[in-house]
Amino acid sequence: MLIEMRGELSGGKVVVEGSEAEILGFRGFGKKKDRIVLSLEEAAVLLETSKLVITDEGGTDLTLAEFLKLAVEIAPKFGVRYLVYRDLKGRGYVVQPGRADFWLYPRGVKPGEKPARYFVRIFSERDCISVKELGELLILARNMRKEPILAVADEESDVTYYEVKEAKLETQEGKEGGDDITEKVTVTLLGDRVILWDTDVAEYLYRTYFFGTLTKEKRLLLSFPEAVYLMKRGLLELNGAPLESQYSNVKPLNGERLIKYARSIEPEFMDKYQVYADLMEKGLIVKTGFKFGSHFRVYRATQQKHSLYLIHMLPEDHVFTLPELSRAVRLAHGVKKRMIFAFREQEGGALRYVDVGRMKL
Amino acid sequence: MLIEMRGELSGGKVVVEGSEAEILGFRGFGKKKDRIVLSLEEAAVLLETSKLVITDEGGTDLTLAEFLKLAVEIAPKFGVRYLVYRDLKGRGYVVQPGRADFWLYPRGVKPGEKPARYFVRIFSERDCISVKELGELLILARNMRKEPILAVADEESDVTYYEVKEAKLETQEGKEGGDDITEKVTVTLLGDRVILWDTDVAEYLYRTYFFGTLTKEKRLLLSFPEAVYLMKRGLLELNGAPLESQYSNVKPLNGERLIKYARSIEPEFMDKYQVYADLMEKGLIVKTGFKFGSHFRVYRATQQKHSLYLIHMLPEDHVFTLPELSRAVRLAHGVKKRMIFAFREQEGGALRYVDVGRMKL
Repeated sequence: MLIEMRGELSGGKVVVEGSEAEILGFRGFGKKKDRIVLSLEEAAVLLETSKLVITDEGGTDLTLAEFLKLAVEIAPKFGVRYLVYRDLKGRGYVVQPGRADFWLYPRGVKPGEKPARYFVRIFSERDCISVKELGELLILARNMRKEPILAVADEESDVTYYEVKEAKLETQEGKEGGDDITEKVTVTLLGDRVILWDTDVAEYLYRTYFFGTLTKEKRLLLSFPEAVYLMKRGLLELNGAPLESQYSNVKPLNGERLIKYARSIEPEFMDKYQVYADLMEKGLIVKTGFKFGSHFRVYRATQQKHSLYLIHMLPEDHVFTLPELSRAVRLAHGVKKRMIFAFREQEGGALRYVDVGRMKL
Repeated sequence: MLIEMRGELSGGKVVVEGSEAEILGFRGFGKKKDRIVLSLEEAAVLLETSKLVITDEGGTDLTLAEFLKLAVEIAPKFGVRYLVYRDLKGRGYVVQPGRADFWLYPRGVKPGEKPARYFVRIFSERDCISVKELGELLILARNMRKEPILAVADEESDVTYYEVKEAKLETQEGKEGGDDITEKVTVTLLGDRVILWDTDVAEYLYRTYFFGTLTKEKRLLLSFPEAVYLMKRGLLELNGAPLESQYSNVKPLNGERLIKYARSIEPEFMDKYQVYADLMEKGLIVKTGFKFGSHFRVYRATQQKHSLYLIHMLPEDHVFTLPELSRAVRLAHGVKKRMIFAFREQEGGALRYVDVGRMKL
């Protein structure tokens, strides 16, 4: 560029006036009026690439170092915003810095021509995001009809992008297991799981509905969520009362008694169980996700070989550190599954499922 | 087996007497005296495979269901111990159940012939293990000259084994960076990182010692640990004092001032920094592990392409849930790295590095 364009740092923005402003305007920077008001991020990138000279209010030229130092004083989050802005521009996107988020346009589109497709929320590796905020982000996205992106600048100043969306888990294909079992079968408590003794029912529940683990001796080892689920449907009967001494005033009511016991060894059992039951009712096949560090791995009935989702239930007041989020998503990605977090927006509220995935921009 | 062997459940053990005991003795079960005393796990497996009839003290035969129910009443951890015992026997190992741990012998070896090689600590998917316990396990292992294994039975009654060992991180090959820089270079704070302006020094530190990230404009973006490390060695000078208003009584002492600022935005910064500095002093190359959800990924100077370790610093009172441990180890394994947890056994104590890996038995 041959013209030396000049802007003035004033009131936390950089103002470019006159004909110079027009040139910038056509390049997707700033806001078009009679003058262009550049955000600090826009100005910094133009200064860095020698396309703009920035002066202070006294008219003295600022070096990039001076400008960055002032920018950090004006906006404490400037550092990480600047890194993300630079990164997105470098990838050929049109980006408009807003107060909290950046607006991201499809490549080659000028602001005003088409609406922004994404809004980008900006984080540093050491920031946190709460489950509540994730939920709010999705509501905001729905209202604005845009898709949310989390941009995280790590210590190497590398930016990782995550897409966040409502998980679509509904399915027509499954059927709930065990309706054709007419007599109650006996199970025995074995620590934190139960054994089902009837070898025919064991094999049937295992092969047809993928419940439990079948032993060599054709007995079925059921997890607590599985056992409670089948008991609530009247299919199982708990043999004996090994816990009667502890719960002598509790009538052996099967399901309820097992839940009470399960909660005594796993306080958040019910939260987890409700997700389990909800997924089962959606016709999905649900197994433990222990090997992947999450509560459940979930299959579709028509595609049993490879589990599709890892699902982890979180308390409604959970706060993610970003490395924690990164770890869960990276792991799911590495084993070709989607990472889904389940939570309630408020205590007793409906279950929500949020799908968070790595995004290649 | 043609002889019907009989044992009696008595005092929390199953006792087999006389000639029958001898036969069992040769098969690596129980304890050899004039009679054989079987642990509950041993007895349950023999009962399950119809090799033993177990009676109660009144002489009445017990079904497997009855026996398991009694066993859980006697030993609350019986359920998961039984699953792990069955699994190890099924894999052809000789196992001796002890009070807390199982003793595991190499395949085909009889107890007494050779010492046990491993001790196996038993967990359910919903148990926890503290960093303190991990440390104690290693001390125990050293004293007993055995290797520790964690066995975790998940909800599917599948058992996953983890080896735990001291990490060997020492290296002779590395050299610390920057000794050949004689003049202080200026850096500017940019949010939660710093920029180094001198393009020659930037390129030198980046290419020779792998510090930071080099921008297109040949400026070096350094993370706080990197910047503090170089400052403590007198190589960098912080430009200006953007935080003077906040810390007006703090003299601009470079390293210390930056640490104070870093701690204000990341309270556990020093813990993390001390691990960084320790690894650097061992001659290793240390970068952020954000993409893998841990603090650092670590390379050896002679093998820069692929990082070897993921290292995560934990507070000394940290308690792992087992899914959390599983997630970290699974992720590291999936990207062909070792998962190493750093911690201090007590506040102010020496740093310890524990390597936890999946083990195929």
